[in-house]
Amino acid sequence: MPADIAGAIAALSHLEIDRKPASVKAKSRDFFWYSPVLKARMDHLQADFVVSPRSEAEVIEVLKVCYAHDVPVTTRGAGTGNYGQAMPLAGGCVLHMRHMAAVKEVHPGRVIVEPGCLLKDLDAHCKAHSGQEIRMFSSTWATATIGGFIAGGSGGVGSCRWGALRDLGNIIRLRVVTMEEQPRVLEFRGEELPRVSHAYGTNGIITEIEMPLAPAYDWVEMFVAFKDFMAAVEYARDLTDEAGILIKLATPIQAPIAHDYFQRVKPYVAPGDNLVALMVAPHSMDGFLTFHARRDGRIIYRSDDNDWAKNPGPVFEYGWNHTTLRALKVDPAITYLQVRFAGDDMLEKIRKVSAIFGDEVLQHLEAMKEGGRTMFASLPLIRFTTEARLDEIVHIHEDLGCMVFNPHRYTLEEGGRQTVDDRQLAFKRQADPKGLLNPGKMIAWDDPDWGYDRMYAYPGMTAAE
Amino acid sequence: MPADIAGAIAALSHLEIDRKPASVKAKSRDFFWYSPVLKARMDHLQADFVVSPRSEAEVIEVLKVCYAHDVPVTTRGAGTGNYGQAMPLAGGCVLHMRHMAAVKEVHPGRVIVEPGCLLKDLDAHCKAHSGQEIRMFSSTWATATIGGFIAGGSGGVGSCRWGALRDLGNIIRLRVVTMEEQPRVLEFRGEELPRVSHAYGTNGIITEIEMPLAPAYDWVEMFVAFKDFMAAVEYARDLTDEAGILIKLATPIQAPIAHDYFQRVKPYVAPGDNLVALMVAPHSMDGFLTFHARRDGRIIYRSDDNDWAKNPGPVFEYGWNHTTLRALKVDPAITYLQVRFAGDDMLEKIRKVSAIFGDEVLQHLEAMKEGGRTMFASLPLIRFTTEARLDEIVHIHEDLGCMVFNPHRYTLEEGGRQTVDDRQLAFKRQADPKGLLNPGKMIAWDDPDWGYDRMYAYPGMTAAE
Repeated sequence: MPADIAGAIAALSHLEIDRKPASVKAKSRDFFWYSPVLKARMDHLQADFVVSPRSEAEVIEVLKVCYAHDVPVTTRGAGTGNYGQAMPLAGGCVLHMRHMAAVKEVHPGRVIVEPGCLLKDLDAHCKAHSGQEIRMFSSTWATATIGGFIAGGSGGVGSCRWGALRDLGNIIRLRVVTMEEQPRVLEFRGEELPRVSHAYGTNGIITEIEMPLAPAYDWVEMFVAFKDFMAAVEYARDLTDEAGILIKLATPIQAPIAHDYFQRVKPYVAPGDNLVALMVAPHSMDGFLTFHARRDGRIIYRSDDNDWAKNPGPVFEYGWNHTTLRALKVDPAITYLQVRFAGDDMLEKIRKVSAIFGDEVLQHLEAMKEGGRTMFASLPLIRFTTEARLDEIVHIHEDLGCMVFNPHRYTLEEGGRQTVDDRQLAFKRQADPKGLLNPGKMIAWDDPDWGYDRMYAYPGMTAAE
Repeated sequence: MPADIAGAIAALSHLEIDRKPASVKAKSRDFFWYSPVLKARMDHLQADFVVSPRSEAEVIEVLKVCYAHDVPVTTRGAGTGNYGQAMPLAGGCVLHMRHMAAVKEVHPGRVIVEPGCLLKDLDAHCKAHSGQEIRMFSSTWATATIGGFIAGGSGGVGSCRWGALRDLGNIIRLRVVTMEEQPRVLEFRGEELPRVSHAYGTNGIITEIEMPLAPAYDWVEMFVAFKDFMAAVEYARDLTDEAGILIKLATPIQAPIAHDYFQRVKPYVAPGDNLVALMVAPHSMDGFLTFHARRDGRIIYRSDDNDWAKNPGPVFEYGWNHTTLRALKVDPAITYLQVRFAGDDMLEKIRKVSAIFGDEVLQHLEAMKEGGRTMFASLPLIRFTTEARLDEIVHIHEDLGCMVFNPHRYTLEEGGRQTVDDRQLAFKRQADPKGLLNPGKMIAWDDPDWGYDRMYAYPGMTAAE
């Protein structure tokens, strides 16, 4: 059935609806433009209207009405995702969660919050309430929402201590509304969480989130400079391995990234300086400085003690995908990849990749815990030339035994492990029988036999004019 | 010079001095009797007098007077150590720290405390102040002091998350008084800490301690039963590897220990039941139960939900050296060892040891973090027959590549890595030039050429009457 946009808008007219083309366009976009591949394919996308519900009851109403009128619904938080997660491939309705931002309850070790709450507002609330903060957050902390982080993210600042969002214990509970004739409200815990976490809103709309908390400290933020990149990598790995030194970030960044792309850092580094960006708990500084003194690195910046002319801002805004953002602002030809370096030979793999690509692929790593070990999530900067060369770079990584999570794809599968997530697909069958939730993002729904031999192109995507 | 006991007592008569033989005898003992080897050699030991200072100034006075009168000084907290750490081999003065028990300051992530404070009092103070607690403690938490834990312990409940006391960051600062003509007061941090931590008071007296804190939670305590011991071991290891599930204890205990020695647990287990004792943060229970449901274990006890006729008390009082204590109470022929199982083949080594010894050595393991990996500190129960067989058991472990920290020795070296700790020896030369602090506990001081081919016997030890 074709979407009855006008009918849906009429039925929802008592809610906050935006139909102004310029602002609908703005609210139909995320940070997909980090990828030249996605930019070439998604730049024209635009919803028909945006609705901003104020309660779960209004979410239910939106889903019920859009179901009845066959209108696709794509949900967004702040739109800081990088894979077009929040972009409406087939037009229709963008469900904007900005008004559902209440922190409902804070307890020792956990918080209950609505999805539209900004990460920074959530942390501020928990800190003021009881000196707590969320275990991990994306580098877009200042602008991103907790719901978007869970639906579209995988980990971040804090993952060096707590692992990934998908790890047991890092999400406690999600409350989800389905898109059926009569939407249901479901509560997911434990084994049920992966049905809807990191599912881009393709199979349900998250209306309440329960997350674990950790103590909030006045983290000491630092940059440590190294002449040798692998020394920086070993430093970050070994520091992350120190169980008694509490850290929240350990980010090796290869030269000349800091010099070329970090404008407020540039006066203090040479082109050959590799950096490790760090966040260390203040009461762990003695242990940290003892560790540090055994190594070759040079602390060039401490947030609690420096004479820098300009405040560089939070060091985590130089890590995760902010590294790419800073490079992009200086050189629009830069893009990035997402590579997993793990196992006993991970340093050897990093060394090999560096040797193979040279300046075409500059390393930027994030220390994470995985299965009890320290590993690196890599978000290397890529000097983009052609899509074919980008694919080749991916394949060279894969041939070396490195898993790549391709950020130049808008589907769950291609950005993940290139296989169907049966739990997500099975739940979509129950929760979204018409396939109206964020259409085109789950290949398994559209084309179960897809072979992953080329980039998936959603047949229902709105054509560029 | 022979000790002038009478002269020292006279000079210290304005302090709290105990000379009553029965109570001096009691205050000259620790839990050395866990070891039949130590019991045979140390049971007769007794100081000449006990002094209980009320301040650092009084500690300085005691050390100055005893220095002048050549009186040995052995410091004790609560005397819960197991290696005779706090026992005066050569008589003289026992320095009892019970009156120096003040919690001086609590800050986010750290506490400043006097050494005589009981671990449980310290935790109660920090929890009431700001919902915090110490990162790790010995299973003697209810009776032991923080000073004794640092001077004589190595880790404990919490080490599965934070590693050992010796790991960087797990002690922040120690304030120490030397035993010289004019005692000095020194502050140690970072690389200087190992000079005096775990030194049994052989080279200085700790008068103030700064320790890191973690959030205090209402830990859910559990026993999980397994038919297969190695399944229990894998469960504990894998749970400790889950970065998102916050735990404070993971203790595999081989059958039939629970049935034979844990009287309040016995009604709920069969002789063949192996246990894992656990402490899990309440907000990690969902993640934990998800982990648990994937395994074969059966939760037989939850502190927050059970119908047991008698409260078994804290589960950590079934772990660490309380396992041995409970076995000893039932069967006085039981003693124990301390073995390190680490590395990629640690499970294979545990399997081998179990197969070699059968019931003569029952496994009891404690999950710990070490160098970024989960390993097991083992405190197996040994069915004691002869000292020669005990030594043989040690050698068989060592031949398998397992490091043994022999708890049947009263010296730092023999209970440790059987080598001189140069940092401790060098500091003793500065801080205790007459060698009066806890004499006989540091072989390197007495006999630098000692070969470790047999048990060290301190020549200055008071003879049994």
